[in-house]
Amino acid sequence: MQPYTPGEQAAPGKTIKLNTNENPYPPPKAVVEAIQHAATGAINRYPDPVATSFRRAAANALGLPGPEWILAGNGSDEILTMLVRGFVGEGQRLRLPYPSYILYRTLADIQGADWEQVAFEDGWQLPAAFGKTENDVRLVFLPNPNSPSGTVVPPAEIEQLASTMTCPLVVDEAYADFAEANCLDLVQKHENILVTRTLSKSYGLAGIRFGFLVAQPQVITELAKIKDSYNCDMISIAAATAAMGSQEWLAEVVAKMNATRSRLSERLATLGFNVTPSQANFVWCQHPSGDHQGMYDFLKKNQILVRYMKFPEWGDGLRISVGTDDQIDACLMMLENYLKKNA
Amino acid sequence: MQPYTPGEQAAPGKTIKLNTNENPYPPPKAVVEAIQHAATGAINRYPDPVATSFRRAAANALGLPGPEWILAGNGSDEILTMLVRGFVGEGQRLRLPYPSYILYRTLADIQGADWEQVAFEDGWQLPAAFGKTENDVRLVFLPNPNSPSGTVVPPAEIEQLASTMTCPLVVDEAYADFAEANCLDLVQKHENILVTRTLSKSYGLAGIRFGFLVAQPQVITELAKIKDSYNCDMISIAAATAAMGSQEWLAEVVAKMNATRSRLSERLATLGFNVTPSQANFVWCQHPSGDHQGMYDFLKKNQILVRYMKFPEWGDGLRISVGTDDQIDACLMMLENYLKKNA
Repeated sequence: MQPYTPGEQAAPGKTIKLNTNENPYPPPKAVVEAIQHAATGAINRYPDPVATSFRRAAANALGLPGPEWILAGNGSDEILTMLVRGFVGEGQRLRLPYPSYILYRTLADIQGADWEQVAFEDGWQLPAAFGKTENDVRLVFLPNPNSPSGTVVPPAEIEQLASTMTCPLVVDEAYADFAEANCLDLVQKHENILVTRTLSKSYGLAGIRFGFLVAQPQVITELAKIKDSYNCDMISIAAATAAMGSQEWLAEVVAKMNATRSRLSERLATLGFNVTPSQANFVWCQHPSGDHQGMYDFLKKNQILVRYMKFPEWGDGLRISVGTDDQIDACLMMLENYLKKNA
Repeated sequence: MQPYTPGEQAAPGKTIKLNTNENPYPPPKAVVEAIQHAATGAINRYPDPVATSFRRAAANALGLPGPEWILAGNGSDEILTMLVRGFVGEGQRLRLPYPSYILYRTLADIQGADWEQVAFEDGWQLPAAFGKTENDVRLVFLPNPNSPSGTVVPPAEIEQLASTMTCPLVVDEAYADFAEANCLDLVQKHENILVTRTLSKSYGLAGIRFGFLVAQPQVITELAKIKDSYNCDMISIAAATAAMGSQEWLAEVVAKMNATRSRLSERLATLGFNVTPSQANFVWCQHPSGDHQGMYDFLKKNQILVRYMKFPEWGDGLRISVGTDDQIDACLMMLENYLKKNA
C-alpha cells in the first residue's frame, strides 16, 4: 500500500511555504494565552473526553442549536478516519469527485475498502451521477471548496445530490471560512449531510491539530463510540475554545487573505496562466506552456515551495497557497523570471 | 455496540481521584516551560509528522539504537488502535489475558474483529496456551504490569510465550516505569515483540495525550503508513520531548509513588483486604466481606473516586490508584470508617 504523502515541510524562516494551505499569520493572541494558561493547569489529569468547552464555543460561533451537534477530533484528519471506519466496511466503497483530495482514497485503502471517483464536469460542477449511489457505496466525500480547484458547488445543488443518495454525504469544509457559502444549514435539515471543519487553515492552528464534525445529534452519538476515549488533549481543547471565541480576528484575517488571493489570481492571469476562480486560501493555475514541473523545480531551488499536482488522465498544474503579500510577491517575481528565461 | 467507558472525571480540586491511575504530582517544570515556549512558535504550521525531536529524546532516554525504533502517537490509545487496524482484519481475532484491560475488546469490536481471552493462572501467571496462536489470531495483547492486578509476567516468560506465537505480541507497558522489569531488550531480539508506552502515568502527562510504540524499524515503517499524517501536535511533541529529558524527575517521582504504594498495600492488608502485590501505580484489593460495591459507593459519596471492577465468572474488587500520601490517608480512613460501621 502506498501511504498518503503530505506536503513537504521546511525549516521555518528559510523557505516560503505556499504548499500546504497553512495560514501565514499567527493565531489570535487569545489562543496563545489559553495555551500558556492551560500549561499551568492539571495536565497530569485526563482531558475532557468530549471537549465540552470547545463544543459550546463552536455551537455559539456557528449558530448551531447546541454542542450535541459537534464532535471534536485530533485534526479533521481524525474525523475523516472515524467517518470511514464508522460507515465503510472492508470491501465496501466510498465515492469522491475527481480531481479532488486524494487522502480519501488512502483512508479507503487503510480500511481495506474500495473507492470510486466521479469526474467533475466542465466548470467544476458535479453530474447528477454523483448523487446516484448503489448499495456498496456507503459514504460520499465532497470537499467544498474543492482542492486543487478552490471551487464551490452551491449548497442548493449539494442538497439536491444528497437527496438521491442512500448513504451519508460528507461535505469537507476545510476551506469554507474563505468561501461565500457553506452547508451548515443543510445539516439541520438532512440527517445524511455531515460537515467537517478544521482549525488548521482559517484559524492558523495547523500545529495544534483540531477539527470537528457537524452532524445531527444521533449521528454524533454513534460516531463518538468509535473514537479514542481521550482523542483531544487539554491544551488543544483550550486553544480551540479560544479560537472559536475569536470571530472578529477570523473575519479580519479572512478578509486580508481573500484580498491577497484576488491579487495573486489577477497577476497570475497577467503572466498568462489560466486561473481557476478560487473561494479557498489557495489558487489553482495552469500555464499554456504546460511546464508546471519546471516552474515548481525553479521555485523550489529558490526556496519557494508550491504544490505541483498531476492528476492522471486529467492534467497537471500548480496549487499556490495564499501567503502574506510579501511572500506572494516573491513567488510571482520568480515565476515571471522563469517565464522570461524560458520564453 | 457498547463503547468503552473511561473512568469517571470529576471537577478538579473537589474530588480525590484515585480511579484512573493518573500521576497525582504535577509534571516536570521543563514540560510546562516547553509548552509555553511552543505556544509562541509557528503553531500556524503543520507539526513534524514523525515527531523527530521526541523520538530522538526517547531513544536516548531508553537506550534504544535510534529514533527509527519508535512511533509516536496521540496517547498510547492511538497506538493500540493503529496496531489493531494494522494487524487484525474484519473477522480475524485478537487475544488478551483475563482479567485484564477491556479496551482491547472494544478496539476489536470497532474493527469488526473478534477477540478471545485466556485466563491467568493462580498467582497471575500465564499458561503456555497463551502463546499457542492459531491462524485466525493475528495479534496478542499483554498489559505488563497488568490491570487490575498490577502484577508482572517476567520478561523471560514473555520471551518464551512469544517464541511460540505466529503473530505479534504487544506488551502494553503503560505502567512499566513503576515496575522492576520491562521488555525493551526483548524488542531488539525479536521482531514479533512490540512494546507500547504512555506518558500519561509515570510522567504525569495524561492531559497532553502522548504515547509511543517501540518495535523493530521495519515494523515501525509499516505501521506509520496507517497513521493520520500529523497525528501528534507541535505542543505535545515539545512537551513529550521535554519529559523524556527529565529522567531525574522521573526517578524521584516513581520512588515516591512506589513508597506510597507500599504503605497503601500494607494498610489495606491491616484492614483485612487481600492485596495483590503491585508493580504499577495502583493496587488491586479484595475484602473477605465481598462488599466492594458498598465501599465504592461510600467512598464516592465522600468525594473519593476509586475503581470498582467486576469481571464476570471471576470476581470483583477495588482498584485504587496511588495518589499523594494525604489522598491515600483520606481514602484509607474512609474505608476504615465504612468497615467499622458495617462490621
